[in-house]
Amino acid sequence: MYSFKNDYSEGAHPRILNALLESNLVQDEGYGEDQFSREAIDLLKQKIGRTDVDIHLLSGGTQTNLTAISAFLRPHEAAIAASTGHILGHETGAIEATGHKILSVAVDNGKLSPTDIQAVLDLHTDEHMVKPKLVYISNSTEIGTIYYKNELEQLSDFCRKNNLYLYMDGARLGSALCSEESDLTLSEISALVDAFYIGGTKNGALLGEALVICLESLKEDFRYHIKQKGGLLAKGRLLGIQFLELFRDNLFFEIAFHANKMADLLKNELVKENYTFLTHSPSNQIFPILPNAIITELQSKYAFHIWEKVDADYAAIRLVTSWATKEEAVAAFINDIRRL
Amino acid sequence: MYSFKNDYSEGAHPRILNALLESNLVQDEGYGEDQFSREAIDLLKQKIGRTDVDIHLLSGGTQTNLTAISAFLRPHEAAIAASTGHILGHETGAIEATGHKILSVAVDNGKLSPTDIQAVLDLHTDEHMVKPKLVYISNSTEIGTIYYKNELEQLSDFCRKNNLYLYMDGARLGSALCSEESDLTLSEISALVDAFYIGGTKNGALLGEALVICLESLKEDFRYHIKQKGGLLAKGRLLGIQFLELFRDNLFFEIAFHANKMADLLKNELVKENYTFLTHSPSNQIFPILPNAIITELQSKYAFHIWEKVDADYAAIRLVTSWATKEEAVAAFINDIRRL
Amino acid sequence: MYSFKNDYSEGAHPRILNALLESNLVQDEGYGEDQFSREAIDLLKQKIGRTDVDIHLLSGGTQTNLTAISAFLRPHEAAIAASTGHILGHETGAIEATGHKILSVAVDNGKLSPTDIQAVLDLHTDEHMVKPKLVYISNSTEIGTIYYKNELEQLSDFCRKNNLYLYMDGARLGSALCSEESDLTLSEISALVDAFYIGGTKNGALLGEALVICLESLKEDFRYHIKQKGGLLAKGRLLGIQFLELFRDNLFFEIAFHANKMADLLKNELVKENYTFLTHSPSNQIFPILPNAIITELQSKYAFHIWEKVDADYAAIRLVTSWATKEEAVAAFINDIRRL
Amino acid sequence: MYSFKNDYSEGAHPRILNALLESNLVQDEGYGEDQFSREAIDLLKQKIGRTDVDIHLLSGGTQTNLTAISAFLRPHEAAIAASTGHILGHETGAIEATGHKILSVAVDNGKLSPTDIQAVLDLHTDEHMVKPKLVYISNSTEIGTIYYKNELEQLSDFCRKNNLYLYMDGARLGSALCSEESDLTLSEISALVDAFYIGGTKNGALLGEALVICLESLKEDFRYHIKQKGGLLAKGRLLGIQFLELFRDNLFFEIAFHANKMADLLKNELVKENYTFLTHSPSNQIFPILPNAIITELQSKYAFHIWEKVDADYAAIRLVTSWATKEEAVAAFINDIRRL
Repeated sequence: MYSFKNDYSEGAHPRILNALLESNLVQDEGYGEDQFSREAIDLLKQKIGRTDVDIHLLSGGTQTNLTAISAFLRPHEAAIAASTGHILGHETGAIEATGHKILSVAVDNGKLSPTDIQAVLDLHTDEHMVKPKLVYISNSTEIGTIYYKNELEQLSDFCRKNNLYLYMDGARLGSALCSEESDLTLSEISALVDAFYIGGTKNGALLGEALVICLESLKEDFRYHIKQKGGLLAKGRLLGIQFLELFRDNLFFEIAFHANKMADLLKNELVKENYTFLTHSPSNQIFPILPNAIITELQSKYAFHIWEKVDADYAAIRLVTSWATKEEAVAAFINDIRRL
Repeated sequence: MYSFKNDYSEGAHPRILNALLESNLVQDEGYGEDQFSREAIDLLKQKIGRTDVDIHLLSGGTQTNLTAISAFLRPHEAAIAASTGHILGHETGAIEATGHKILSVAVDNGKLSPTDIQAVLDLHTDEHMVKPKLVYISNSTEIGTIYYKNELEQLSDFCRKNNLYLYMDGARLGSALCSEESDLTLSEISALVDAFYIGGTKNGALLGEALVICLESLKEDFRYHIKQKGGLLAKGRLLGIQFLELFRDNLFFEIAFHANKMADLLKNELVKENYTFLTHSPSNQIFPILPNAIITELQSKYAFHIWEKVDADYAAIRLVTSWATKEEAVAAFINDIRRL
Repeated sequence: MYSFKNDYSEGAHPRILNALLESNLVQDEGYGEDQFSREAIDLLKQKIGRTDVDIHLLSGGTQTNLTAISAFLRPHEAAIAASTGHILGHETGAIEATGHKILSVAVDNGKLSPTDIQAVLDLHTDEHMVKPKLVYISNSTEIGTIYYKNELEQLSDFCRKNNLYLYMDGARLGSALCSEESDLTLSEISALVDAFYIGGTKNGALLGEALVICLESLKEDFRYHIKQKGGLLAKGRLLGIQFLELFRDNLFFEIAFHANKMADLLKNELVKENYTFLTHSPSNQIFPILPNAIITELQSKYAFHIWEKVDADYAAIRLVTSWATKEEAVAAFINDIRRL
Repeated sequence: MYSFKNDYSEGAHPRILNALLESNLVQDEGYGEDQFSREAIDLLKQKIGRTDVDIHLLSGGTQTNLTAISAFLRPHEAAIAASTGHILGHETGAIEATGHKILSVAVDNGKLSPTDIQAVLDLHTDEHMVKPKLVYISNSTEIGTIYYKNELEQLSDFCRKNNLYLYMDGARLGSALCSEESDLTLSEISALVDAFYIGGTKNGALLGEALVICLESLKEDFRYHIKQKGGLLAKGRLLGIQFLELFRDNLFFEIAFHANKMADLLKNELVKENYTFLTHSPSNQIFPILPNAIITELQSKYAFHIWEKVDADYAAIRLVTSWATKEEAVAAFINDIRRL
């Protein structure tokens, strides 16, 4: 049984484990004030090409989202998210648990546009309703699509004109940036959004996300919020060492390229076999639509999620690739598809 | 510069890193539903000697405290803690951020007694005040003291009679249980408290705490709370693998014994030199009272916290030992003390 | 300018003000422990025909909803509401501010059915999502429709089978019960739901809602929640005196009958003039669809809300009647409609 | 039995009820947007002598405190209060329920000084602790003492230098301002604090507090917070009419003068009889220390709180006066004291 279920099925990229081993006995400060974390943050700033951002290392995506969003918003302010947004339906009400409503917009492709947001603003006009204040987007999205530069520019422009914060969940930002369709860089993203995070967990780390706060007014006292929400690891070095290794010489991007390449291999072969896809996803998640009978056959050898029924005979499945996805496994899967 | 500043200055016990390496490429489920986590939980149940407890692996102490306490209490219910309690003053209002007041009792030795709690109950008599419902204790405490069996029995008895939950923060439970003064076992603790956690971070792990829920009524839906509070790691295996290694053959206790032994060495030599201590702490934290001049000298070679001023000429410092504390470092420190 | 804008445009029914005057100098206890409140509660129990319910008097609808729902739910549990539900879009995120998500279902008639709720349950299957636990319904609904006995029985049955609380917002319960289409009594409602409130503010009182908790397990410590959420009035007698007067001899129902009768007069005449309505609303809110030109004319003499555009030429307006609505004002409005 | 138990034992001052009667049938807007509320607010601004403050009418003290404090603070920020502070121990954790810790300082006279606050600041130095941000004071205090101008100036100066908000709970502000020892005016208070409220409930109204926000940065979107916390009354006119009547021609101050005069009468006679007092309280609450035997005798004819035991034979009782306190009742009480 080989798993294409997600991009967190294995441990960490071997170089990361090695970095942990090599630094293991060095004594250093706790709570992210160690040399490794400081260096990792400096390195990230270099990669982004800016020194005027604040960067914090946190342990996971939900933790990062809830800490950031609750720190940024006042009690009556709400987030806007696509109907597929991770914070909306897959974080057990984490944002609401900090007191904030999420206003959702039904979209097909996982992405928000100014038109979508304007529709929400039009409905929220007075103090009997929450005040929309933060736009939450994911890149790549929960269904594998990515934002293009012009889309993000339009969103950014719209948010600034409407006094909204633009926040990007980058759990799979590596894959988005390394997509062959991508026309965005870390630096450009930092100029267009008010805060975003660079996901480590789903891109080779054991755990860890690097939150980048770009907007000056959102920076103050952020470490208090991390501590209050339980995210300040005593051995914060664990995060620092990993991000240092990921960005020391572009391992982060190599990992994402590999994951995307494996997904592309799968996709291209499925296209050749005339299969269609639920979404146009140029990243490490693909959603081919297969006949139920073939899905059942595949399940005997491969683990994956059945994403949604398409009709009585067909369903979309989700295949996810990662740093650990082996080319042989992809080849075997393709052979099985061809055979079936 | 050698650090006695805390028990999280280094990475993980080498055996733990090794376990991570060995399991690294095994594919498994996410979010703590992997084989390693399941085995670790089974093993912990064996060590506790009970199958009727629920065990969850979380990433850190504050995370565990806030997740557990907010899951256990209704909105109007409050926790009671000693004035030194970690949740009271060193978790950035994490418990209050989930909506609950902490009622504090001034104590000298870091420990709560039935008399202390009764005093709080006497003051909280109607619906204009919060309802005290959960007693928070730490073992070992924040100032190195430990609970003895008869103390815990009295507390347990009192809490049950007064319909209060008894919750033990075990960030340093290993050191407490392995203290030469300890007369308590994991099994006995599980019979006396309603929930407690077994701290990994400060006892050799990279991160990780094992929350044990003993009271049936507190168990329901607990994984929802972990997810909502951001504590459900995608690669939950990271916690499972570490606890499996810690309890496979008593590494957890060996680590604690070593830490205590190093602290005892320091303490015994300081006693010989006629120094006194702020608290009676038979665990891995000691608080010798030293002349300011000597403290200044020591600071040039050793890192440690100055805990509190005792008078114009003396202060108590905190020395903390761990699995990583080297006997030579202890010997060097002692020599320096003698010399000074 | 005469207002049909809402049922809280005037002060209180004169008999209520009179009751306040007569009792004004009597000294009594604070915080709802006065004789008036106790008698009002006893009287309400008689009207409901049960002594095994708990009744609390609160100051307003949002206050009641947020206090009850946050008291009833654990942190990970969510409410389910119709897309028109007051708590969803018109209480400024009050429920989310207490930490709970509201899951909405798009419905046409303002009412929830077991099928609607089942659809929500089907989507919420594990701890990555909130746990649906409380079904929020309004009666009459925000768009004037009412629940019939068989509908409420089906909902009640479904909720009990699925371990869901059924909560009824009765801001306009008087109008619903006194509708000529109503086949429900207070007593029957109390047997079918787990908690509901009897709205005073929109039925003749200055302010005040009577929350009835029917389910035993939801009763404990409720006064703590009222106090914590700021709803325990020092002069709680203000609520007691009003409910005493409302229920002493059926004034509550007389008021609702009058409001409904005035709405019926308006509706019947509009029907005669061949106007249609946005919803079938046999209560004190009606939503006739009128040509924009006529709406503009009417606005010069009457205040009302334009509820929603129907097409380029037509819009639905909302007309609300109350204890204070004068028959002459209704007659004048009808004449104007006929004339236009 | 005559009650000196509190200042909310009766209904409202007759002129207030009369104002409600006279305006009863006037139709007006809901939610505090009515003419009465607007006029009341304008009038209050005149009395304060400033147009650059925002004023909101709310229903009660706890509601006002929790709405204001949660609107003003970010999640990691805490309030500082005297150990007698109402929000600390008598509001069922209302502030904590909005997520904020209250840091308390033990004081004898119910009042905070810069020294007290500095001590709290000294202990809260980094992100492992909450950040003290708002200083909560009551005037008059919970034990009847009042702030003098120089004290408030020092506090104000200290808070501004330390970037702390200064918030005054004025549940009994009328009595404080009308104390014969008072050297403060509404206008001066508005210049020295960042927000305060003028209590109506304990000074003749049925219910109602007028929150005055002086600091520009605290004003934004405040009505959202009132609505979210359940404090926006549909018939907001109820508050407007009352405050209009209270301030139309100084009824507010007349009421407070009368209450203070009655308290002074009681105090002066008790002094003549050589009784001492728990606190120096030149307002409408006094705390004479009486022999237990006399207390028991008095309890047969008067209702009052026994505040605290002083020793085995003596206890302090609390006597509270109001607009409704009759001179004859005071005379009778004094006679009984003399006789006993």
